[in-house]
Amino acid sequence: MEYKRPFGVRIDENGVIPGAKKLVRRLSDMRGYFYDEKAYEELLKEDPVVYEVYAVEQEEKDGDLNFATTILYPGKVGKEFFFTKGHFHAKADRAEIYYALKGKGGMLLQTPEGEVEWVPMEPGTVVYVPPYWAHRTVNTGDEPFIFLAIYPADAGHDYGSIKEKGFAKLVVEENGEVKLIDNPRWK
Amino acid sequence: MEYKRPFGVRIDENGVIPGAKKLVRRLSDMRGYFYDEKAYEELLKEDPVVYEVYAVEQEEKDGDLNFATTILYPGKVGKEFFFTKGHFHAKADRAEIYYALKGKGGMLLQTPEGEVEWVPMEPGTVVYVPPYWAHRTVNTGDEPFIFLAIYPADAGHDYGSIKEKGFAKLVVEENGEVKLIDNPRWK
Repeated sequence: MEYKRPFGVRIDENGVIPGAKKLVRRLSDMRGYFYDEKAYEELLKEDPVVYEVYAVEQEEKDGDLNFATTILYPGKVGKEFFFTKGHFHAKADRAEIYYALKGKGGMLLQTPEGEVEWVPMEPGTVVYVPPYWAHRTVNTGDEPFIFLAIYPADAGHDYGSIKEKGFAKLVVEENGEVKLIDNPRWK
Repeated sequence: MEYKRPFGVRIDENGVIPGAKKLVRRLSDMRGYFYDEKAYEELLKEDPVVYEVYAVEQEEKDGDLNFATTILYPGKVGKEFFFTKGHFHAKADRAEIYYALKGKGGMLLQTPEGEVEWVPMEPGTVVYVPPYWAHRTVNTGDEPFIFLAIYPADAGHDYGSIKEKGFAKLVVEENGEVKLIDNPRWK
């Protein structure tokens, strides 16, 4: 029998996994995601990087595991904090585990029916993402928010429903505080 | 539909996960695991804690994920460094991901045919344990070696084969250096 090879790799202080597949999401990759369209168009002139992902992925096979770091930069579109697109798993019953490495933020989770949960994250926080919950991370601080995620190799990503419907809540700064407010556009 | 609840929990500086199920392995729980039986009996008078595990586990269901921290204490039995028992997964094709938090050590891995790999670990190291490999962690330093593990909820543990046959290599200190030597008792 042919076995896959074990390996170790050290995440560097900036969250980079050497040799991993890199994905970059700029603001221009996220049209329609933020509530304040005017602020979006204004910031688009700079088109900042919102987040980067370094992923080490296996074949899509039941029982195998992938891991990835995300570097989510600080910033806001209007009063809404920078976030990752967010997704359900294509195999909806796949769970995921996050571990926060640096910075400050949280995870916004949502059931298919629109029930929302918010889990604050700081270095050392483990988050359990149960099967069936969409999940998005949010940087509520002023430095890069960096975390490690471990997910089943066959989980897959379903970005479509979140892109169309969004999350029922927005994570915003109001009077210097982090608040969750209803998303007026959520349906 | 009833959904499981998401949650966040912060691993403290000693590797403890508040609220998690705790397991303690003392030297007396590991009879037959170390090579030097005379040194084992001598140290047994103190019966030190070799390691502690804090586990947050779900029902054994395909696609769900467990996580656990291990605090593996520094020490030796004869010239052999303290280690965890080590196991295959009961569902042998389940992978696992480790993330080193504190201290210094490594992972000893072995196929069912006895091929061995050694992966050094320091804080920031992610280790990919592929399907089918038995795995044991070893503390090669002089402070607690602490790491986080994420594994499929239905992986299970098969300790039996390692308890009977051991690993083909021992991790020992010789002239102040960490060395892998053949296990004379391995069959």
